[in-house]
Amino acid sequence: MSDFAAIRAAADRARGRIRRTPLLTSPALDRLAGRRVWLKAECLQVTGSFKARGGWAALSALPAQARARGVLAFSSGNHAQGVARAALEFGAPAVILMPSDAPSVKVENTRALGAEVVLYDRATQDRYEIGARIAEERGLTIIPPYDHPEVIAGQGTTGLEIAEQARAAGIARADVLVCCGGGGLSAGVALALEALAPGLRVRPTEPERFDDMARSLAAHARVENAALSGSVCDAILTVRPGEMTFPILSRLAGPGLVVSDEEALRAVALAFAHLRVVLEPGGAVALAAALFHGDEIAGDSVIAIGSGGNVDSTLFARTIQRYAV
Amino acid sequence: MSDFAAIRAAADRARGRIRRTPLLTSPALDRLAGRRVWLKAECLQVTGSFKARGGWAALSALPAQARARGVLAFSSGNHAQGVARAALEFGAPAVILMPSDAPSVKVENTRALGAEVVLYDRATQDRYEIGARIAEERGLTIIPPYDHPEVIAGQGTTGLEIAEQARAAGIARADVLVCCGGGGLSAGVALALEALAPGLRVRPTEPERFDDMARSLAAHARVENAALSGSVCDAILTVRPGEMTFPILSRLAGPGLVVSDEEALRAVALAFAHLRVVLEPGGAVALAAALFHGDEIAGDSVIAIGSGGNVDSTLFARTIQRYAV
Repeated sequence: MSDFAAIRAAADRARGRIRRTPLLTSPALDRLAGRRVWLKAECLQVTGSFKARGGWAALSALPAQARARGVLAFSSGNHAQGVARAALEFGAPAVILMPSDAPSVKVENTRALGAEVVLYDRATQDRYEIGARIAEERGLTIIPPYDHPEVIAGQGTTGLEIAEQARAAGIARADVLVCCGGGGLSAGVALALEALAPGLRVRPTEPERFDDMARSLAAHARVENAALSGSVCDAILTVRPGEMTFPILSRLAGPGLVVSDEEALRAVALAFAHLRVVLEPGGAVALAAALFHGDEIAGDSVIAIGSGGNVDSTLFARTIQRYAV
Repeated sequence: MSDFAAIRAAADRARGRIRRTPLLTSPALDRLAGRRVWLKAECLQVTGSFKARGGWAALSALPAQARARGVLAFSSGNHAQGVARAALEFGAPAVILMPSDAPSVKVENTRALGAEVVLYDRATQDRYEIGARIAEERGLTIIPPYDHPEVIAGQGTTGLEIAEQARAAGIARADVLVCCGGGGLSAGVALALEALAPGLRVRPTEPERFDDMARSLAAHARVENAALSGSVCDAILTVRPGEMTFPILSRLAGPGLVVSDEEALRAVALAFAHLRVVLEPGGAVALAAALFHGDEIAGDSVIAIGSGGNVDSTLFARTIQRYAV
């Protein structure tokens, strides 16, 4: 099955289970960016992020017997909720390995979806080792956060919708800015756009000091970040691009974009004020690039994916007050 | 033209100008309410509230010559922005009379849409007198906030979408809770549902001490509120039901619902955490009734309109922290 056929198949399996999210605009943001800005509001997706798409795609593709034994995922929070929700709807057990510094709202939401949460120390423990051991003991199938064909296909359904919505809005050529951790969303969207909207080009967008994808694209080889933690954009902090996602993006994506934590937080405050949606900082880096890095973008229109909205109320409250617009 | 035909005509004129807003759900809110809760997220409408619908409907129905002379509106903020935006898109002048205690975000947004804002004192000045004088001097057409056939028809387009979305979601019977000031949205939605979804029934929802519609429906006659201000739900504080809206609701609506300011603020915090949308307190009273007054509601499903999301960042920040969930 070709990659694009896998995306179409994932979309078929997701019908009625995954929300079609709107493409939002605001005159104030257009003025600020100097071009038309469209936000694909995946923060309005079930579980509050696009990760519900990949979770559903992966679980719905599993043989029924394997699914009944259960699944295991590693995640700082959004993939956790996406997998937990799919497991809950299928009546399958789910174990989620989360770093101990994950936002408490993500830990709580994952538990509320019925999953068993196992915490580990991001700096000192190897999550793959812990996960492999639990999975083997209990016969669980591991659902990786991005390096998995069905997960990439599921995230790619976002790109199917963007292609259709852009056509309806009369957008023929534009950069599509995608919040990027391991590259699952970027790669899936790039594959969908290649097939349906060749005038739209993915631009992976990352926080400063966690710009492994941007540097890897420039170097034509996967390079790593020095830091393991220390950005407010917790949702998209990965060590290096994925093995499966990097070749796709190397072929299809434009240069990566990089924003500061402060730019991400300003984008959170602007999305609150002008679009009335809740973005988490890691879910706002693409919008931040659209608003504050316009000189690195081509065209009259730019599409930014707002990839998630799972943010602690204290951080959100501080952000909208500090950067009140 | 019948009332329903006016709604259809308003929807035709609004194509491409007014957003079709999503119907959002969350398992956490369903658990809290003890039934399925659907939020019609009009906070995601252009200008951040359903009032953009009525403003567009009214201006697009004006003869071109009258429209070119300009329009005048009275509003605590959301109708102001709806009319100002429609005027801006038509290139028509707009004067907006706003109470001096309107949230600054609404005053600023109205000015950003190119309108001339005239402030008055809600307690001591008669806005109708001031407005009539300015309109006469400048040849402006007054666009009332609710007692106007085209405004009611425009708000009724929300009901067209609800009828279609409810059918798609398999909801045959449900109460539709509508944040209610003068009753324009409630009346328009009631007319649309009468024609398209007779199993759906409008329930106007108001804040305590401003429950003129609930008391009027019970009394079968229009009664007034004692207070003129003093609720955090600034968007929906009116003295009495509209002359045109009350007979429609008297015929079609179920009993009114009334929530406390604290319940409205809790609903704001819950919509932030579980739906990732921004509601203003007055736009959250219907959701508050769905969540906290379930014993006054019938059926397995309830639809609540989240009518607006124009809220100062300080109030929003305080609310999500105080009622963190």
